[in-house]
Amino acid sequence: MASYNIFLLPGDGIGPEVTAEVEKVAHVISGAGLAKFEFEKGLVGGSAYDAHGQAISEADMARAQAADAVLLAAVGGPKWADVPYEVRPEAGLLRLRKDLGLFANLRPALCYRALAEASSLKRELVEGLDIMIVRELTGGVYFGEPKEITNLPNGQKRAVDTQVYETYEIERIAAVAFEMARKRGNKVTSSEKNNVMKSGVLWKEVVTDVHKKSYPDVQLEHMLADALGMQLVRYPKQFDVIVTDNLFGDLLSDVASMLTGSLGMLPSASLGAADASGKRKAMYEPVHGSAPDIAGKGIANPIAMIGSFGMALRYSFGLIEAADLIEKAISDVLAAGLRTADIKGDATSSVSTSAMGDAIANAL
Amino acid sequence: MASYNIFLLPGDGIGPEVTAEVEKVAHVISGAGLAKFEFEKGLVGGSAYDAHGQAISEADMARAQAADAVLLAAVGGPKWADVPYEVRPEAGLLRLRKDLGLFANLRPALCYRALAEASSLKRELVEGLDIMIVRELTGGVYFGEPKEITNLPNGQKRAVDTQVYETYEIERIAAVAFEMARKRGNKVTSSEKNNVMKSGVLWKEVVTDVHKKSYPDVQLEHMLADALGMQLVRYPKQFDVIVTDNLFGDLLSDVASMLTGSLGMLPSASLGAADASGKRKAMYEPVHGSAPDIAGKGIANPIAMIGSFGMALRYSFGLIEAADLIEKAISDVLAAGLRTADIKGDATSSVSTSAMGDAIANAL
Ligand SMILES: CC(C)[C@H](C(=O)O)[C@@H](O)C(=O)O
Ligand SMILES: CC(C)[C@H](C(=O)O)[C@@H](O)C(=O)O
Repeated sequence: MASYNIFLLPGDGIGPEVTAEVEKVAHVISGAGLAKFEFEKGLVGGSAYDAHGQAISEADMARAQAADAVLLAAVGGPKWADVPYEVRPEAGLLRLRKDLGLFANLRPALCYRALAEASSLKRELVEGLDIMIVRELTGGVYFGEPKEITNLPNGQKRAVDTQVYETYEIERIAAVAFEMARKRGNKVTSSEKNNVMKSGVLWKEVVTDVHKKSYPDVQLEHMLADALGMQLVRYPKQFDVIVTDNLFGDLLSDVASMLTGSLGMLPSASLGAADASGKRKAMYEPVHGSAPDIAGKGIANPIAMIGSFGMALRYSFGLIEAADLIEKAISDVLAAGLRTADIKGDATSSVSTSAMGDAIANAL
Repeated sequence: MASYNIFLLPGDGIGPEVTAEVEKVAHVISGAGLAKFEFEKGLVGGSAYDAHGQAISEADMARAQAADAVLLAAVGGPKWADVPYEVRPEAGLLRLRKDLGLFANLRPALCYRALAEASSLKRELVEGLDIMIVRELTGGVYFGEPKEITNLPNGQKRAVDTQVYETYEIERIAAVAFEMARKRGNKVTSSEKNNVMKSGVLWKEVVTDVHKKSYPDVQLEHMLADALGMQLVRYPKQFDVIVTDNLFGDLLSDVASMLTGSLGMLPSASLGAADASGKRKAMYEPVHGSAPDIAGKGIANPIAMIGSFGMALRYSFGLIEAADLIEKAISDVLAAGLRTADIKGDATSSVSTSAMGDAIANAL
């Protein structure tokens, strides 16, 4: 039986609560003889800063590099609002993405039939929704230099961030999107602001080239990022795969997440390039944050975290059957009416984080 | 009777059709003896490029500078997809904003009771919605340098855009937002990505300072731009005034626009700093684009354009009573059931651009 080494980074806030539920699910999968998992734990974000003054330690970075996959929950919270920029909780997350080369962030926005009522949108607009957002994750304004605040002679300050994209960065993320589309609805919507940004001009040009050269069978459309934000709310089912840059992907995936009823539902995968043996570095994390307001209360929704583990099985370990089982278990407990507080909607009662985890593990 | 000089820039696509309706409304207002308007017409965008190879001519720039207010409809379309970046239709719009110093873009997102049904969101979430988005309009990634595509020695390309904000730019837009809030719900939500961008760090710091120094009576909250995108869809009525940068404002106002039922409904005002005599340069434009797909069909919704004229009366000419009358006329014709195609929803029939303009002019 194959054995996989998973580096767990519970992080801050509700992180430790939701990661605990993953271990239950992993236990069932290995009990069924499908695979074995070894979990090693590390610190990231505010909890790492509290422990040793850095958002992630060198030792934990080395463990992340060595693991078969990293599973991260969430970082940040008001407790660390005033720590220096370089060691703020998010710096740990961003360093992991950058140093592991995780350029492709897959963010499915899936609306479970049982939850369509919890969406802000009218039921018919979201029921059965199934979008895959492919967000570029190691470039753009997140990492471009200069990124600095300087003091001006007149006593004022000047802040600069730099959005940079090179051809190869756009080529490889476009390829991920087109490959993904072939396994789904065969349509890619590429989004930028080429009417205002030079990086948008290059983005559109390169995506068009990659399409023409290698994926002419996939339907490609271009949509300005502001128009895409609007269309996501107007008629989201028009989309299959959306490919966009780091910053637009950040915003647009949060907007898309709301269509599904709750941010507490959405997993994500961040993948690096395949090496000679076909292996990719990968990190899996829920789209939601550390939700400090409900941390420690045992009411957080563990579905995004469990779903992220499911994505690890699918994309890192090739355990497609087990991944499908997890998705089905989630769908089944929702259909049976089980709800955590965030997706309660009109339901009369809600269950705890741990009860939801148990139910999914049992449904497997 | 005061007389105002309005420089009309119909631009491209549906622009000429919707501007024609403004002239009808202006005619009624002057007929009632409230004020006189002189309209001068110019070219901007693709139509300017076709006429003289530039997205706006020097002569028209001079007219825009001299006018009491500029009224612009929309620019762009597939016809000009391949013109050089420097003279693309949007360059005319961006030059007007920059050269006239129109740093404050006011974008109300108002959901008329009669249109709540046309929104993608559930009725109770949007009925009576009244948000004012204050978008910074002359800074950020739109205008920062370097903004360029260079050829790399390896044959690839490298695109760079630069987001720049200085203290004074944030101070003045924050002041606009706080002043606005005092006349409304007394709450400002300031939005950036200070967890990733240095411009976000400075933005938050300066807004906090301006608040403490001059507007401690206004409620201030900070929200990351991705979270704001999500909250706009989850529960938009939590917002009163939102203040954000040029790029986030572009995206978020498009998302917000969809809450109101149709982009065809939303006017905007772009204001410069007041001079010694209290006068501000100003340009008024609908949030919607040139909609080339329906251009020339006579079915475009002229309400955003007429509403933009109403904003000119309010913010440039101090004709508050006339501005209120226009808003009431729009609300009345909607309540009476009149609909253009974009806001038709479940209505059985829709009227033309010109019939809608006539109805609003008559309702005055
Ligand atoms: C926490 C933050 C740095 C991060 C981002 O901006 O990428 C988050 O919003 C996300 O979407 O993963
Ligand atoms: C046309 C385009 C340049 C413009 C912008 O990006 O500002 C538009 O989207 C807007 O919101 O006014």
